[in-house]
Amino acid sequence: MGTKGENNRTRIIEAADQLFYKRGYNQTSFSDIADITGIPRGNFYYYFKTKDDILAAVVEARVNHYQDALLNCDSASDNPRDRLLAFIDNMSNSEDTVIDSGCPIGSLCTELAKDTDALQSKSREVFELLRDWMSKQFEEIGCADANDKAMDTLSRMQGIALIACAFKDHAYLHRSVGDLKSWINSLTLS
Amino acid sequence: MGTKGENNRTRIIEAADQLFYKRGYNQTSFSDIADITGIPRGNFYYYFKTKDDILAAVVEARVNHYQDALLNCDSASDNPRDRLLAFIDNMSNSEDTVIDSGCPIGSLCTELAKDTDALQSKSREVFELLRDWMSKQFEEIGCADANDKAMDTLSRMQGIALIACAFKDHAYLHRSVGDLKSWINSLTLS
Repeated sequence: MGTKGENNRTRIIEAADQLFYKRGYNQTSFSDIADITGIPRGNFYYYFKTKDDILAAVVEARVNHYQDALLNCDSASDNPRDRLLAFIDNMSNSEDTVIDSGCPIGSLCTELAKDTDALQSKSREVFELLRDWMSKQFEEIGCADANDKAMDTLSRMQGIALIACAFKDHAYLHRSVGDLKSWINSLTLS
Repeated sequence: MGTKGENNRTRIIEAADQLFYKRGYNQTSFSDIADITGIPRGNFYYYFKTKDDILAAVVEARVNHYQDALLNCDSASDNPRDRLLAFIDNMSNSEDTVIDSGCPIGSLCTELAKDTDALQSKSREVFELLRDWMSKQFEEIGCADANDKAMDTLSRMQGIALIACAFKDHAYLHRSVGDLKSWINSLTLS
């Protein structure tokens, strides 16, 4: 695939990523993506044969995006606690989109839990990346139950995003992110 | 509407409720509901003109269902802490469906956050009922921040359901429900 082909492929993935987040996977058609990118549907099939192929590429792009975000957290501090806090701050930094549409990862997993197992497993990959990274941080903090703490942190972030979005409640989001950070700060070496 | 009419209407609502939960609102068509109920699509429009009308009726049925569940919790104990614990136990009692499809309320709100404001407000009604009831229990326990505690409890339940469903993890669900109940038990009068 030449440079133009790569460029088109990337534009399709970026448009699909936004549409899956803002409208939902099932509410996004090939035509919607063609409309936004201006790439004719006919050419389109050259890059992706099915919508499931696009989903796989979107999840891969999100994994790459979060890998970069985690690398940024890693390089921000030598202290695993501060890295976790830096990651949680990402949620406040995306406040408006979280209030509008929830968490892109959580809402995709929720939608695809109602679909085939293959699509659901795919949607889970970003969560697995985050869980493993968080677990590593909690291990470095010295928590014996690092994996449980990682699952709890994911769960609390998801609960916050879902409720903040359902109630359109910015004040709740601020308070809860603060509470979650206080919880991380309160953890003592076990 | 005669008895047969009422009966048909109820069957349509019950089928739609299950389909919205198992497949999603947008993935459910009039034909799907007609197939399951055996009520011909032609007759169908006599009861509901649009899918939004069905959504309103499903939310109303869910509000009634949860009102009954909360009355059961109310009559189970004079102690507001025990009532909250009884409500949380409902989640463990629906373990298999939570693992399969998440929380029916949370997943509907997440899906409809990506739709019109009217549909989203409608989907929030069950959450509002639960928040108000929980807030009342926390007030009776003596918490000064009863409304915040109610939002936190909703949020934690939603996080648990979402992560348990995304990872298909029964052990996580059990542990987290236990942790949430311990948190309720640990609250002291303020």
